[in-house]
Amino acid sequence: MNLEDHLQRLKNNRLFELFVISVIILSALEIGLKTYDLSEMTLHVMSYLDISITVFFLVEILIRFFAEPSKKQFFKSGWNVFDTLVVVISLIPVDESNMALLARLVRVFRVLRLISVVSELRVLINSLLKALPQLGYVMLLMFIIFYIYAAVGSFLFESINPVLWGDVSISMLTLFRVMTFEDWTDVMYETMAVYSFSWFYYLTFIFLSAFAFLNMVIGIVVSVIEDEQNKEREKHLPDEPSMTDLHNEINALRALLETKFASEKR
Amino acid sequence: MNLEDHLQRLKNNRLFELFVISVIILSALEIGLKTYDLSEMTLHVMSYLDISITVFFLVEILIRFFAEPSKKQFFKSGWNVFDTLVVVISLIPVDESNMALLARLVRVFRVLRLISVVSELRVLINSLLKALPQLGYVMLLMFIIFYIYAAVGSFLFESINPVLWGDVSISMLTLFRVMTFEDWTDVMYETMAVYSFSWFYYLTFIFLSAFAFLNMVIGIVVSVIEDEQNKEREKHLPDEPSMTDLHNEINALRALLETKFASEKR
Amino acid sequence: MNLEDHLQRLKNNRLFELFVISVIILSALEIGLKTYDLSEMTLHVMSYLDISITVFFLVEILIRFFAEPSKKQFFKSGWNVFDTLVVVISLIPVDESNMALLARLVRVFRVLRLISVVSELRVLINSLLKALPQLGYVMLLMFIIFYIYAAVGSFLFESINPVLWGDVSISMLTLFRVMTFEDWTDVMYETMAVYSFSWFYYLTFIFLSAFAFLNMVIGIVVSVIEDEQNKEREKHLPDEPSMTDLHNEINALRALLETKFASEKR
Amino acid sequence: MNLEDHLQRLKNNRLFELFVISVIILSALEIGLKTYDLSEMTLHVMSYLDISITVFFLVEILIRFFAEPSKKQFFKSGWNVFDTLVVVISLIPVDESNMALLARLVRVFRVLRLISVVSELRVLINSLLKALPQLGYVMLLMFIIFYIYAAVGSFLFESINPVLWGDVSISMLTLFRVMTFEDWTDVMYETMAVYSFSWFYYLTFIFLSAFAFLNMVIGIVVSVIEDEQNKEREKHLPDEPSMTDLHNEINALRALLETKFASEKR
Repeated sequence: MNLEDHLQRLKNNRLFELFVISVIILSALEIGLKTYDLSEMTLHVMSYLDISITVFFLVEILIRFFAEPSKKQFFKSGWNVFDTLVVVISLIPVDESNMALLARLVRVFRVLRLISVVSELRVLINSLLKALPQLGYVMLLMFIIFYIYAAVGSFLFESINPVLWGDVSISMLTLFRVMTFEDWTDVMYETMAVYSFSWFYYLTFIFLSAFAFLNMVIGIVVSVIEDEQNKEREKHLPDEPSMTDLHNEINALRALLETKFASEKR
Repeated sequence: MNLEDHLQRLKNNRLFELFVISVIILSALEIGLKTYDLSEMTLHVMSYLDISITVFFLVEILIRFFAEPSKKQFFKSGWNVFDTLVVVISLIPVDESNMALLARLVRVFRVLRLISVVSELRVLINSLLKALPQLGYVMLLMFIIFYIYAAVGSFLFESINPVLWGDVSISMLTLFRVMTFEDWTDVMYETMAVYSFSWFYYLTFIFLSAFAFLNMVIGIVVSVIEDEQNKEREKHLPDEPSMTDLHNEINALRALLETKFASEKR
Repeated sequence: MNLEDHLQRLKNNRLFELFVISVIILSALEIGLKTYDLSEMTLHVMSYLDISITVFFLVEILIRFFAEPSKKQFFKSGWNVFDTLVVVISLIPVDESNMALLARLVRVFRVLRLISVVSELRVLINSLLKALPQLGYVMLLMFIIFYIYAAVGSFLFESINPVLWGDVSISMLTLFRVMTFEDWTDVMYETMAVYSFSWFYYLTFIFLSAFAFLNMVIGIVVSVIEDEQNKEREKHLPDEPSMTDLHNEINALRALLETKFASEKR
Repeated sequence: MNLEDHLQRLKNNRLFELFVISVIILSALEIGLKTYDLSEMTLHVMSYLDISITVFFLVEILIRFFAEPSKKQFFKSGWNVFDTLVVVISLIPVDESNMALLARLVRVFRVLRLISVVSELRVLINSLLKALPQLGYVMLLMFIIFYIYAAVGSFLFESINPVLWGDVSISMLTLFRVMTFEDWTDVMYETMAVYSFSWFYYLTFIFLSAFAFLNMVIGIVVSVIEDEQNKEREKHLPDEPSMTDLHNEINALRALLETKFASEKR
C-alpha cells in the first residue's frame, strides 16, 4: 500500500473530516474575534493561531492533492480550485501596515471553505447554480426595465435631485431602492412637486418590476416541482410495467388465440 | 431568385441578427452615456452615431418589410407595428431647443427593440401578457377595495392632512403607500391623534389588500402549474394507449373467445 | 304571463344588467367626485343625481324581490340581504348638518354592490371566504404569539416608551408595525439602550411571526392545488375505466376460459 | 371502577376540556388587564383571581397525571413536561417587590398552555417543528453568508459608524436590518460617502440573502406538496390494483391458454 492510498484513507476518514471542519470554524471564530477590541496579549496569541491555521490548511490541501490519483482531475473541480486559491493567497506574506485590510479580507473567505468541505452545503449551492441560467432571460428583461426607467428618470429628474438621478447608474440604484419600497414616497413626492404626474412613472415601475420578479419566483417553483416529478417518475419506471406494455401483452394474447383458432379451422 | 428571397435569407441570417442586436445594445449604451456630463467633442461624435443608428434601424425595418411575402401580414404582428412606430417617430426632425426632451424619450424606447428582436424575450413577454386577463377580476376587486377605502379616508381624514387625503385620487396613492408599508405608521399615528380608532381602518385595509394580493399570486401559480400538467399530458398521449384502449382490447378478446366457443357448441 | 314572469325576464335581461352596473359605476364616480372641492352649482346637480340613484336602486331591488317566486328564498342569499340593507339605509332622511358624514359613508358602500351584481366577483369573494375557516387555527396561533409578545413587551418596555408599549393593545399594534418592518429598528434601538439584549425579543418575534405567516400562505397554496386536482380527477372519472375495472374484466375472461376448459375435459 | 378510571373519564369529558380552555383564556385576559393602570380595588380582586387560577391549574395537572395509567409515559410527552413546568414555577412564592417582573413573565407563558390543550394547535406546532430540521442546511448557509458579510462590513466600515459596524455581532444585526429593507439606503449612503463602490457590498448581500431565503420557502413548499402526494398515494393503494397486478393477471391468462393448447396438441 503506497502513499496515495494512505492519504486517501486519511482524507476519507470521518474523524479527519470533523477535525478539518473544526479548524475552519475556529478560523471563522478568530476572524469574528478580530472585529472586537482586543488586548495586546490576545492579539499576540491570535497571530500564532493564525499561522497554525494557515499551515494546517496548506497541509490539508496537499493531502487532498496527493490523494487524488489523477492530478489533472483535481483542478477540474471548481471547489478544489477555490480551496487552493484561498490557501495560496493567504500564504503571501503581507506587510501588516499597508496591506493589513486586504490580508484580513482574504482570511474571511476561509469561512467559505465550510461550504466546500460539508457535502450537503455543496449540493445545495450546486442546485442553486443550476437554477440560475434558467432565470437568465427573466433577469435580462428586468435589467431592460431598469435601464429604460433609469434613462427616463435621469432625463426628467436630474435637475430636481442630481444625488438621486445624476446619471443612468445612480438612477438604477435609486430605482432598486424604490423596488425595495425603501422611503420611495420621499423620492416620489420630491419629483411630484415639479411633475405632478410622476406618480405614474413610479407606479408603473413598481408594477412591472414586481410582475417580473413574481414571474421569476414562479419560474423557479415550477421548475423545482417538475424536477421532483421527473425524479418520481424515473424512480417508478423500472418496477412498474407501462400502459404500452399491457397493450402489447393483450395483443400477444390475441395473436396467440387467433393463430390457434385458425389452425383448428383447417 | 428575386429580391424578396434575398432579403429573407439576409433577415434569417444568424450573423445579421447578431449585428442588429449589437446595434440595439450600442444605441442603449449611447442613451445611457447621454445622462453623463460629456465634452463638446463627444457630443459631436455621438450626434453622428445617433444618425447612423437611426438610418440602420430604418434599413433593417425596410429589409424585414420587403422580405415578408404578404405585406398585410407584416402589420398584423404587434412587434412589427411597435418597431415601425419607434423607427418612424425617431425620424421626425426635432428642433433640439424645445423638443429635445421628447426626442430623447423616444430614443429610449429603442432599447425595447431588444425584446422584439430576441425571440426568447418575446416568448416571455407573450406568456406574461397571456396571464394578465385571467387576473382581471382580482385586479378589479383590488381596485374596488382601494376606491372604497380612499373615499372613506378622504371623507374622514381630509381635515387632518389634505396633502395625503385631499381627494379620492390622492387618497388612493396614500393607500398604495400604506400597502407597501412605506412609513405607514406615520400616516396612521397622525389620524389616530384625532380618531383614536382609525387603526381599524388601516389594519383592515392591509389585511384585505394583502389577502387579495395573495390570491392573485396563488391564482398565477395554480394556472402555471395547470398549464404545465396539460402540456405534460398532451406530450404523453400519442405514444401511450389510454385505459379505455386497454378496456376495448380486453373486450374484443372476450368477444373473439365467445364467438369461437359459441361456434364450437353448434 | 303574469307580473312575476315579466319582472324575471327584465331581471335576466343582459341590457338591464349592464344598465344596473352603469348606475353603480355612476354612483361610485359621484362619491369620488364629492371628495373634490366643487362649485355650488355642481353640488346642486349632484344632489338630484343622488336622489335619482337612490330611487333607481330602490326600484331595482323591488324588481328583484318581486321576480323571485319564493319570497323567503330571497332573504336567504347574503348578497340580497346586503343589497337591501344598503338601499334601505340610504333611504333614511338625514339632516345634512349633523349626520352628513354618516350619510356619505353609507353611500360609499353602494360601490360594494358591484360585487353583488357582477357574478365573477361574487364567485371570487365566495372562494376567498371558503378559504378563511381553514386558516382559522393558524390565525389563532398568530394571535397567541402576538398576545404573549405584547404582554411581555408591555411589562418590560412600558417605562421606556409608553406611547408604543403602554398596554397590551397598544403593544400589539407596535408589534404589527414591527412585523411589517416599518421603522422597526427605531423601536428596537430605543429599548436596546436600556435592555441591551432586547434584540433577542425582536428577532425571535420576527422569525416566529414570519414562520407562522409562511405556513399560512403554504397552507392556502396546498389546499388550492388539492382542490384543483380533485376537480381534475372527478372530471376524468366518468369516461375512463379504472384499474379495478380492467382487473375485473381480465378476471371475467379467465373465468370464461376456465369454465370452457373444464367442460371440455369432461 | 377505581380512581384512575374516574379521573380519565373526567379528563376526556368535553365539558371539562372547555372549562380548562375558558380558565386559560381568563388567565390570558388577566395578564393583559395587568398592563393597564388599575385601581387598588381591582388589583386586590385580581390577586385572588390569580391564586384561584394557579390552584385550578395545579389540580388540572394532577388530574391528568393520576389519570395516566403509566406515570413514566406522562413525562415522555413534551407538552406534559411544559405544562408541569409552567404550573410548578408559578407556584414558587415571590416577594412582590423584587421579583414581580419575573413572576409576571412566568404567568405570561400560561397562555401557551392554550396550544398544549387545543389538539389542533398542537398538531400545527408539531408539523412546523417537523419542517425545521429539513431547513437546517439552508439556515446554516444563510448564517455563513451573514457571518462573512458581517466580518467584511466590520473591517471596512467600523471607522465610519461604530454604532452599526462596531463588531461582528453588531454588524450581523445591521445586516439583518438591511435584509428587511429597513432604512437600508441610509446605511448604504453613509458608507458610499467614503467607499463609493460599497453599493456592490449591499446589493450582492441583498441578492444572496434573498436567493437563499427564496430557496428556503421553495424547499418548504415542495416538501409539503410531496408529503400530500405521498399521503394521497397511500390512500389509493389498497383499493386499486397496480399496473404490475394487471400485468401478472394477463400473463397468468396466457400461461393458462398455452398449457391448454400444448395439452391439446399432444
